[in-house]
Amino acid sequence: MVIGQKTMFVRTAGCDYRCSWCDSSFTWDGSGAGDISKMRAQEIWQELRRIGGDRFSHVTLSGGNPALLPQLSSLVSLLKESGIRMAVETQGSRWQDWLSDVEEVTISPKPPSSGMETNWVTLDSIIANLVNRPSGYTFSLKVVIFNEEDLAYAKRVHTRYPDAAMFLQVGNPDVERMDIQVHASDLLKQYEELIQRVVDSAELNNVRVLPQLHTLVWGNKRGV
Amino acid sequence: MVIGQKTMFVRTAGCDYRCSWCDSSFTWDGSGAGDISKMRAQEIWQELRRIGGDRFSHVTLSGGNPALLPQLSSLVSLLKESGIRMAVETQGSRWQDWLSDVEEVTISPKPPSSGMETNWVTLDSIIANLVNRPSGYTFSLKVVIFNEEDLAYAKRVHTRYPDAAMFLQVGNPDVERMDIQVHASDLLKQYEELIQRVVDSAELNNVRVLPQLHTLVWGNKRGV
Repeated sequence: MVIGQKTMFVRTAGCDYRCSWCDSSFTWDGSGAGDISKMRAQEIWQELRRIGGDRFSHVTLSGGNPALLPQLSSLVSLLKESGIRMAVETQGSRWQDWLSDVEEVTISPKPPSSGMETNWVTLDSIIANLVNRPSGYTFSLKVVIFNEEDLAYAKRVHTRYPDAAMFLQVGNPDVERMDIQVHASDLLKQYEELIQRVVDSAELNNVRVLPQLHTLVWGNKRGV
Repeated sequence: MVIGQKTMFVRTAGCDYRCSWCDSSFTWDGSGAGDISKMRAQEIWQELRRIGGDRFSHVTLSGGNPALLPQLSSLVSLLKESGIRMAVETQGSRWQDWLSDVEEVTISPKPPSSGMETNWVTLDSIIANLVNRPSGYTFSLKVVIFNEEDLAYAKRVHTRYPDAAMFLQVGNPDVERMDIQVHASDLLKQYEELIQRVVDSAELNNVRVLPQLHTLVWGNKRGV
């Protein structure tokens, strides 16, 4: 939903999921423990300004699962007061009231290939909280697709919430590989295959199919 | 603005511009004369259904410059009655009343590298017609960037219409080349350079920077 937007990322540590193909597992598997700092909202804001100066007006909250943290409400308030527009990405397994104040909410329920189970009742209640927000506050659904079962899952999500903007994203087949050219070419091939599947399906007329643009440009490099 | 959307293209012939790098010059330079047919709205709709069956619900009007044609109002009405959502792309040199009925309007004023001159008074009046449409009707500005002068032009556009959603798109450096892998790798390199310029600019915080996704996947192939 925010593809191409210049943004600063704030990643929270910890996740209630353990997706088999997680590309940010350093946020929850202990491997990034040395990079995790406990920070207050004001400290995060200062750090963003130190790194980005006046060259940003948009911040993305991601994780891990940022929706585990009620404490983020103070950061959301501070960023809003500071004129920053926000996006958040979360799997739709937990609700926090501060999600209502984030302009662009992406809910990304995890398909079967992740190894996770969707709690549909919880997801229903989260979607219900996000519809009918004031103009300027939007949300969308995003499902990452690795295989046919994932595509069937995406159809189920789209059928359950037909009025929600829906994005399909081709999965990153190798979160370790550092050869960017090979990686990009492989991703584009899989992207084309996913496009073809969607083109062929009358159930998926009103969806958007996208690659992870950053992996096309930077591969699996972190910090970009 | 509609990146990744499954859509059917309706291209109109004829353009009031002659952009030096036009990737659809067959619509106006005579080279595609044999592919151009004069069709009524009902015939276009039948042809779309013949090709796409029930596997689409979105149509993009492009050109050439579709805004040269007041006659498109009958197609726009027919598609709307048929439950089709529409997008249009036009350079903002002409207004037609049917543009008000198109859900997603992209205005793409042409930067200096095109060799064209922007009529700012006309552009002002077109943008004025597009703001404050009902919810569900959106518009955005898109500028294709080939060089520094184009980026300066994009800043001028963004400064003139600061509240409009703004997209920068990296230019297609070679509209003839058919080696898709080389083309994709070249485009991604130039995309990364454009990202870096935008990252460095405090004037371009609230813009989105995108590649032409279809050229990454299909190169310069037509009909995809």
